[in-house]
Amino acid sequence: MTSLAIGIDIGGTGTKFGIVDRNGNVLFSSEISTKKHSHVETFIDELYDAVFELINKTGGVGRMKGIGVGAPNGNFYTGTIEYAPNLPWKGIVPLAKLLENKFQLPVTLTNDANAAAIGEMMYGAAKGMKDFIMITLGTGVGSGIVANGQLIYGHDGFAGELGHAVVIPDGRFHPGTGKHGSLEIYASATGVKLTALELLSKSAEDSLLRVVPESEMDSKKVYDAAIKGDKIAKQVFEYTGKILGLALANAVMFSSPEAIILFGGLTKAGDFILRPTQEHMEDNLIKIFQNKVKLIVSHLKESDAAILGASALVWNMDK
Amino acid sequence: MTSLAIGIDIGGTGTKFGIVDRNGNVLFSSEISTKKHSHVETFIDELYDAVFELINKTGGVGRMKGIGVGAPNGNFYTGTIEYAPNLPWKGIVPLAKLLENKFQLPVTLTNDANAAAIGEMMYGAAKGMKDFIMITLGTGVGSGIVANGQLIYGHDGFAGELGHAVVIPDGRFHPGTGKHGSLEIYASATGVKLTALELLSKSAEDSLLRVVPESEMDSKKVYDAAIKGDKIAKQVFEYTGKILGLALANAVMFSSPEAIILFGGLTKAGDFILRPTQEHMEDNLIKIFQNKVKLIVSHLKESDAAILGASALVWNMDK
Repeated sequence: MTSLAIGIDIGGTGTKFGIVDRNGNVLFSSEISTKKHSHVETFIDELYDAVFELINKTGGVGRMKGIGVGAPNGNFYTGTIEYAPNLPWKGIVPLAKLLENKFQLPVTLTNDANAAAIGEMMYGAAKGMKDFIMITLGTGVGSGIVANGQLIYGHDGFAGELGHAVVIPDGRFHPGTGKHGSLEIYASATGVKLTALELLSKSAEDSLLRVVPESEMDSKKVYDAAIKGDKIAKQVFEYTGKILGLALANAVMFSSPEAIILFGGLTKAGDFILRPTQEHMEDNLIKIFQNKVKLIVSHLKESDAAILGASALVWNMDK
Repeated sequence: MTSLAIGIDIGGTGTKFGIVDRNGNVLFSSEISTKKHSHVETFIDELYDAVFELINKTGGVGRMKGIGVGAPNGNFYTGTIEYAPNLPWKGIVPLAKLLENKFQLPVTLTNDANAAAIGEMMYGAAKGMKDFIMITLGTGVGSGIVANGQLIYGHDGFAGELGHAVVIPDGRFHPGTGKHGSLEIYASATGVKLTALELLSKSAEDSLLRVVPESEMDSKKVYDAAIKGDKIAKQVFEYTGKILGLALANAVMFSSPEAIILFGGLTKAGDFILRPTQEHMEDNLIKIFQNKVKLIVSHLKESDAAILGASALVWNMDK
């Protein structure tokens, strides 16, 4: 029987995982909560049980070549997750080691956006590209940078933290990092929510968003209002796109990619977010970079893409 | 006889060139003005004559393996200089081709900061490093990014334009690019001058800089005042370092280099500029990147370093 890979994508809210074949078919997948586990040990226990249910459906552990993990602040060289602002576990977590001990399988780990970039390169929009940047817009904002056909890991394995680049000096405070004005605090799910609440409180304009309870405000609600023509809802995406576009322009002038691939919840707002993002990206680029970079929304099925990317790490173990 | 390389570094003000051996010894070097040549043809004529004087001193053109050129907005793939804001020639200039026709020698060209990065990797502070960023602080601000031991050229050969990254959204206008708030318009020679003039006009404070004519204001004058304890002069470097530090932090979170190597006139201000730069870089880094990145001033002799970097391109032609 051909061998299979286990892909695990750890997000701030939930952890998705699945069993994947070499052609990128997700045979089975499932999800557990990340958030509720304040201790990594109980998280691993629940994950083990849930993953084994899938393993048993696919012919047993003997077919599994290994486990690939994408996680925020995941370090490819050390297999650790270090000081991840959006995860419940603080400090340095030796996640690859913990999983290896529990599963008795080889584990390779990298930052979630790097995993997504590998997934796009193997199965998605970046097939055949040698220079591109992957941006994940979820609970946090992550990035994976591919140059000369290689993922950029940097000196210590932490490269690609574009979400923490400062776009507005002395701007909005990010409680997870203690820093001001980073891309993540504007373009993440939390960022969009904060922008919506700010615009509502600053303006007297009527808006469908005024009846949305603060705890339920998210980019889906803002989108629903925007398609009904809500002015403030549209401003939320304009503002987010302005900041995201500026950050993308800076990234383009750094590594001059063929494409930027966007992935995650925010991209569901379609042109409400893409148009201002593209516009402000072009506005901030110097002439030699203008009208060259493709801005692409990942076409991988969202529920699969993160798992695919993580599983792709396993096939790369060969190299 | 062993072969030699010709290194040419084209700057906004002057063009330096020299004959270099494989060990990085600059045998002869000289300089002509870039600025005074509004036409590239007269520039090449003068350059040809001046370079041939040196060639004739070193045994003739038969020993020359080729010509390496570093130039702002130089494109490694096409051998062109495109829309360089700090050069007198507008549009797309096929410089490598023009030089090949004139000299009848193979020519390889890249952006000036990329050339400097190669020079540092072969002969300077970056020997043995696989991940570092070179920042040149001159008439303009350039950068060369090395990751996984390779220079990042990007999809189209233009990667590494960190000087044009926007650090202050809607900030100071850059007449060369038509953009606002880029690193270059704060941390270049012009940027330091503008900051000095701004601080002088905004403050009533006494300053040694008040007697410096506007046309003579530069980082050397500001440094001379700063070592005498001049408050405004010190503020000029503080402000410049704050912005440079922020830009470096963003670059670190992108490619996670082992070191950042600074080169150019501004570095002569020593700790007046380095201390605030380092401090603000660390301030803007998230925890996983803090206290890791070495901030190094290039120790290559300034007059040689640019020529060395450009000449190093010639030895790399082999690969």
